[in-house]
Amino acid sequence: MSVRTDAGLIHEGMVGETVFLSGWVQRRRDLGQVIFLDLRDRTGLVQIVFSPEKNQEALEIAEKVRNEYVIEVKGTVVARNENTINTKIATGKVEIHVEHLTILNASKSLPFQIEANTDASEDIRLKYRYLDLRRPDMQETFKVRHQTTKLIRHFLDEQAFMEIETPMLTKSTPEGARDYLVPSRVHPGEFYALPQSPQIFKQLLMVSGFERYYQIVRCFRDEDLRADRQPEFTQIDIETSFMDKEDLLAMTEKMMVQIMKEIKGLETSTPFPRITYDEAMNRYGSDKPDTRFGMELIDLEEVVKDTDFKVFKTALTTGGTVKGLNLVGGAEQLSRKEIDSLTDFVKQYGAKGLAWLKVEDEGLKGPIAKFFTEEQSLSLREKMEAKSGDLLFFGADKKEVVWDSLGALRLKFGKQFELIDETKFNFLWVVDFPLVEFDEEAKRYVALHHPFTSPKKEDLAQLETEPAQVRAEAYDLVLNGYELGGGSQRIYKRDIQEKMFAALGFTKEAATEEFGFLLEAFEYGTPPHGGIALGLDRLVMLLSGRTNLRDTIAFPKTASASDLLTNAPSTVSLEQLLDLNLSVIAKKQKEA
Amino acid sequence: MSVRTDAGLIHEGMVGETVFLSGWVQRRRDLGQVIFLDLRDRTGLVQIVFSPEKNQEALEIAEKVRNEYVIEVKGTVVARNENTINTKIATGKVEIHVEHLTILNASKSLPFQIEANTDASEDIRLKYRYLDLRRPDMQETFKVRHQTTKLIRHFLDEQAFMEIETPMLTKSTPEGARDYLVPSRVHPGEFYALPQSPQIFKQLLMVSGFERYYQIVRCFRDEDLRADRQPEFTQIDIETSFMDKEDLLAMTEKMMVQIMKEIKGLETSTPFPRITYDEAMNRYGSDKPDTRFGMELIDLEEVVKDTDFKVFKTALTTGGTVKGLNLVGGAEQLSRKEIDSLTDFVKQYGAKGLAWLKVEDEGLKGPIAKFFTEEQSLSLREKMEAKSGDLLFFGADKKEVVWDSLGALRLKFGKQFELIDETKFNFLWVVDFPLVEFDEEAKRYVALHHPFTSPKKEDLAQLETEPAQVRAEAYDLVLNGYELGGGSQRIYKRDIQEKMFAALGFTKEAATEEFGFLLEAFEYGTPPHGGIALGLDRLVMLLSGRTNLRDTIAFPKTASASDLLTNAPSTVSLEQLLDLNLSVIAKKQKEA
Repeated sequence: MSVRTDAGLIHEGMVGETVFLSGWVQRRRDLGQVIFLDLRDRTGLVQIVFSPEKNQEALEIAEKVRNEYVIEVKGTVVARNENTINTKIATGKVEIHVEHLTILNASKSLPFQIEANTDASEDIRLKYRYLDLRRPDMQETFKVRHQTTKLIRHFLDEQAFMEIETPMLTKSTPEGARDYLVPSRVHPGEFYALPQSPQIFKQLLMVSGFERYYQIVRCFRDEDLRADRQPEFTQIDIETSFMDKEDLLAMTEKMMVQIMKEIKGLETSTPFPRITYDEAMNRYGSDKPDTRFGMELIDLEEVVKDTDFKVFKTALTTGGTVKGLNLVGGAEQLSRKEIDSLTDFVKQYGAKGLAWLKVEDEGLKGPIAKFFTEEQSLSLREKMEAKSGDLLFFGADKKEVVWDSLGALRLKFGKQFELIDETKFNFLWVVDFPLVEFDEEAKRYVALHHPFTSPKKEDLAQLETEPAQVRAEAYDLVLNGYELGGGSQRIYKRDIQEKMFAALGFTKEAATEEFGFLLEAFEYGTPPHGGIALGLDRLVMLLSGRTNLRDTIAFPKTASASDLLTNAPSTVSLEQLLDLNLSVIAKKQKEA
Repeated sequence: MSVRTDAGLIHEGMVGETVFLSGWVQRRRDLGQVIFLDLRDRTGLVQIVFSPEKNQEALEIAEKVRNEYVIEVKGTVVARNENTINTKIATGKVEIHVEHLTILNASKSLPFQIEANTDASEDIRLKYRYLDLRRPDMQETFKVRHQTTKLIRHFLDEQAFMEIETPMLTKSTPEGARDYLVPSRVHPGEFYALPQSPQIFKQLLMVSGFERYYQIVRCFRDEDLRADRQPEFTQIDIETSFMDKEDLLAMTEKMMVQIMKEIKGLETSTPFPRITYDEAMNRYGSDKPDTRFGMELIDLEEVVKDTDFKVFKTALTTGGTVKGLNLVGGAEQLSRKEIDSLTDFVKQYGAKGLAWLKVEDEGLKGPIAKFFTEEQSLSLREKMEAKSGDLLFFGADKKEVVWDSLGALRLKFGKQFELIDETKFNFLWVVDFPLVEFDEEAKRYVALHHPFTSPKKEDLAQLETEPAQVRAEAYDLVLNGYELGGGSQRIYKRDIQEKMFAALGFTKEAATEEFGFLLEAFEYGTPPHGGIALGLDRLVMLLSGRTNLRDTIAFPKTASASDLLTNAPSTVSLEQLLDLNLSVIAKKQKEA
C-alpha cells in the first residue's frame, strides 16, 4: 500500500516526520525567496513551503506551479511560529518543508474558482461539472449522500432486510407516468421500458417469500421537468410481508430518527404527527404541508354563506368552497401594487382572481368590503383571528383550485416574510388518501398512488359502486413541505386486484394482457405485504441544506433533460437505427 | 412492532411460550384426529400441530389448508418426545400446539415443488420466477449475493471509498460493444445510451478530486447472449487517484481474501499469482486460464520444424505455430469415433482439423505417425512427457486459432475427465495485455480493454509507430477460469489520449466530437488514476457453486433477451412512438 499521507489529517504530533503528499494546489503565494502553496486532497488542506535552504531545485519547480496543478511532494512536518498559526484550517499549526516536488499534471486557468460560493451560472457549472464537484460545498453534499446511504443500508441490514436487485429493462405498462422506452434489437418493433419504480418486482419478491426486501435503486420518468424533478432519480425502495401499516410506519420513523441523529446531530421525537389527506388539504391546501409555520387556510363557508358577494355565492352554490388566509401585519408589508400582482400568481393555479381585505381599526377596507354587513364583517374577523394591520386573502372556487392557489400563496408568504424556522425538520405522515381520482383527460378514474394500493378494509364495499369515495391504505412521508416518499399496504388477493383494475376502466382482457402474471401470482400463496419508497435525492437535498435537487446528483440533467457535459442525448448512426428497425419521423410526417 | 416470532429460530428454551407465527405451509400430514403442518418462513421451518384437544375450530380450518397456503397461527411451544425429534431441521426438538389459525391466502397446485432440486425446465422456472425463488437453493443464492454485496461495501467504506452514483441515461459512443439506446422525447431524433460501464464518469469523478469512488452498478450490453452473459449485469466499480497498479492489486486481493473468508470460510494466500497475457495464451490458450488443473499446451515449434507433415510445415512457414496437448491415459478413454468427433469441436474455434497420436509401447500410432522419423518421434514424446497409453493432440495454424481450439479442448477434457478440483478457488492476475488489436472487420485497431487504458510507460514510444506492439497497464482478475473483472491505470494526459485516439483511427475532429469534454477535462489538473470493475453476478455464481449466471439474478432475461415472466419486451402504443418521433421499419423497407 501507498505511503501517502492524507494532507488534511497532518497534526502537531507529527512534527519531525517525513511525509509524502499528493493533491491539488489550492493557493500559491510567491514571496520571491520562499513559495507557499496550500495543497488540497480529499481530506483537507495543508501549507507546504519551498525555500532555497531546503531545496533549490524544488523551489525552481514550484515557481512553475499554478492553481489546480496536481503535485506530489516529499517533506518534513514543521511546527509553525505562534504568529503564523492559521486557525481557519485544521492543519494550521504545522506546515510542510518540502525537499522534493514533482508536477504530476498541469492546469489551465479555470472557468470558475474552486470555492464554496461560486457566482458561476448553473450552465457553466454543469458543463464543467468535474470542476464544480471539486468545490467544497459539493464535496460535502456528496459526503452527506454517501453517509446517508450507508446509514440506511446499515439500518435495514440490522432489521434483516435483504438487498435484491430488480431489472432495468422491464415491460411498459399503461398506468403511471410516461415511460422511457428502450427498443429491442432482437425483437423488431418491441420495446423495454425503464422502470418508474420496481413496484411489481418487489411485490413478486414478497410472493417469493423474501419477506424483507430493500434496494437503493434508479428509477425513471419521462415527464416534463420541474426544478425538483429529474428524469432519473434514486429511490430507497422497501417492501415487507406480514408487517402492517403501524409496523411499517414505526420502522420508517426509527430509520429517519437515526439519520437525523447521525447526519444532523438532532433528536427527533416519535411518533411523527399524522394528518389525513382531507385535513391536509383543508388546513394547508397541500398534501405535503410545510408545518414549520402556521398561517393555515381558514374555512369560511359558514361565515360568508349569506354575503352578497357573487364570487363567494357562486362558489358555494356550485359545490365549491371559500377559504381565507390571514397575513398577520400584512397591511403594511404589501403595497397595493404588490397585492394586485398576487392575482397573477394565483392564476397559475387555476384561480380566476384573488379577493382581499385590509383590517383597520375602523373595520375592513378594500374592494370587496362593501359586500359584508357589519355583522358578517365581525364574524369574518373573529373566524380569521384578524386584528388591525392584518391582510386577508380569499379563495372561492372549486375545492381543488382553492386548495392549490391558497396553499401556494401560503408557502410564498412563508418564504417571503421569513415565517419558516429553517432549523426545524418537521416530519409528518399524510394518511387516508383517496384510492382513485377522476382524470378529466382520460375520462376515467386513475390510481392516486398506483393500481396495487390496497383500499382501506372499511371502504372495500364501495370499490365497485363509488370508487371515488374509497380511501387507500396509503401514507406519504412529508418533510418540511417536501414529499419524501410514499407507501401503502398492497392488494394481495386476485379478486380485489381485479375489482381495482375494473374501477380503473380496464376490461378483463386488458387487465389480463397487462398484468395477468401478477394476478396469477396472487393465486399461489401471496402473503399480505406493504412497502414504502423514499426519494434519496430529496432527502439528501434537505439534509445538506440545499434547495436545488441537481446539487445532490453528481451528473444531473437540465430542465430539458440534457447533459451539458457529455452532450447527451445525441444523434446516432443510421446503422444503429437500422439495427433497431427504427426510423426517425420528420416533423411533417408526424403531423400527417 | 409486530410480535411475530421467526419460525426457524424457535428453540427448546422457548418451551411453554405463546408464539405468533406467519408463513407458508411446506408440508401437510393429516392423521385424521391430528394434523401436522410444516410452517415455513424466511428463517426456516417448524412443525405445528392441530388436535381436537387444543382447538377443534383450528383443526377444522387446518383441514382446508394445502401446500403453500399462507397462514397465521397462535400456539404454544412444546418439547417433542425423544422418538419424534426431527434432526433434519433446526427446530426439530420442538413443535407448536396451535390454539388459533387464520388462512391469510390460499394457493393453487404449483407447477413445480418448492424444493432444492427441481426437474422443472428453465423456461417454466422463469415464467413462474416468483415460485422458483421460493426454492431453498435460490433463497440461499440470494443470501450469498446480499452478504457479498454487504461485505464489499463494508470493505470499501473502511478504505475511505465513497459511493457515488453515475447516470443511466448517457451518451452513445462509437467504441466498445453495442449500446442499448433510449429515444429522447424532448429532442426529436436524439438518443441516450444505457451505460456499458460508468468508465468516463468515474474518471471524471477522479478529475473532481473524489480520489476513491465505488459503486455497485447496473451496466448494459446489447450483444448476442451466451450462457454467461446477460443484457444487464451488475458491476463492482472502483476508481482511485494516486494509487499505482501495485496498490490497486493489493487492495483488490485484500477484498477478495475477506470475501472468501466470510462467505466460504476459506483462507486465500496472497499475493495472487500473476501471469502475462502472452504466457497465459501460450500455456493455456486462454486469457482467463483455469489453473485448477494442468494439461498445459506444449510448444512444439522446435520439435516438429523438420517433419514432413505438411500441415505443421505450412503453419510454421506462414507465421503460425504448432502446439500439443497430452491427455494422459487418454488412449483407453476415448474411442476412435470420439476422437474423430473432436474435429467438429475444434472447428468451432476456427481449426481446420485435429491431428492426434496414440502413444504405445512400440511407439506413436495414428494417421500422422508416418510423418515422424524415429528421432523426431522420440523428441516429441520427450517434450510432451508422453508415456504409453497417452493420447496426444495437435494444433497447427495461426496462433490465435491454435490458442482458441486447444484451449477449449483442454477445458473440455478437464471437465470430461474430472481433472478439476472443484473445492479450489484459484485466483490469478493476467497482466501486460496488448493495448490494441487489429479488427479485421473494421479494418482498424480497436482497444483490447477500452480507449482510456494507459500504455505501459516503457512502450509509450511505440504508440504512434507500432501500436500492436504496445502493452497496456491493464490487469484482469481470473477465478477458476472465469474473468471476474478487469482494471487498468488510465491515461490522464491530453496528448497521450490524443495519440491513443489517433492509433484507433479517429481523426482529430472525430475525437473532439465524441470525447472532447474528456480531453478538455485532462487539462484542468487531472490526477493519475486507475481502477477496476468486477462482475458481481459472476462472483456470486462462483461463490454459491452454481453454473448458470441466471440463477444469481432475481429476474433474468433468456438468451433472446426476453423476460418470460412479464413478457418484456413488448409492443407499445402508436401514441408512445409518436411521442418519441419514431416509426418501426417493416422488414421490406429495411432491406431497401
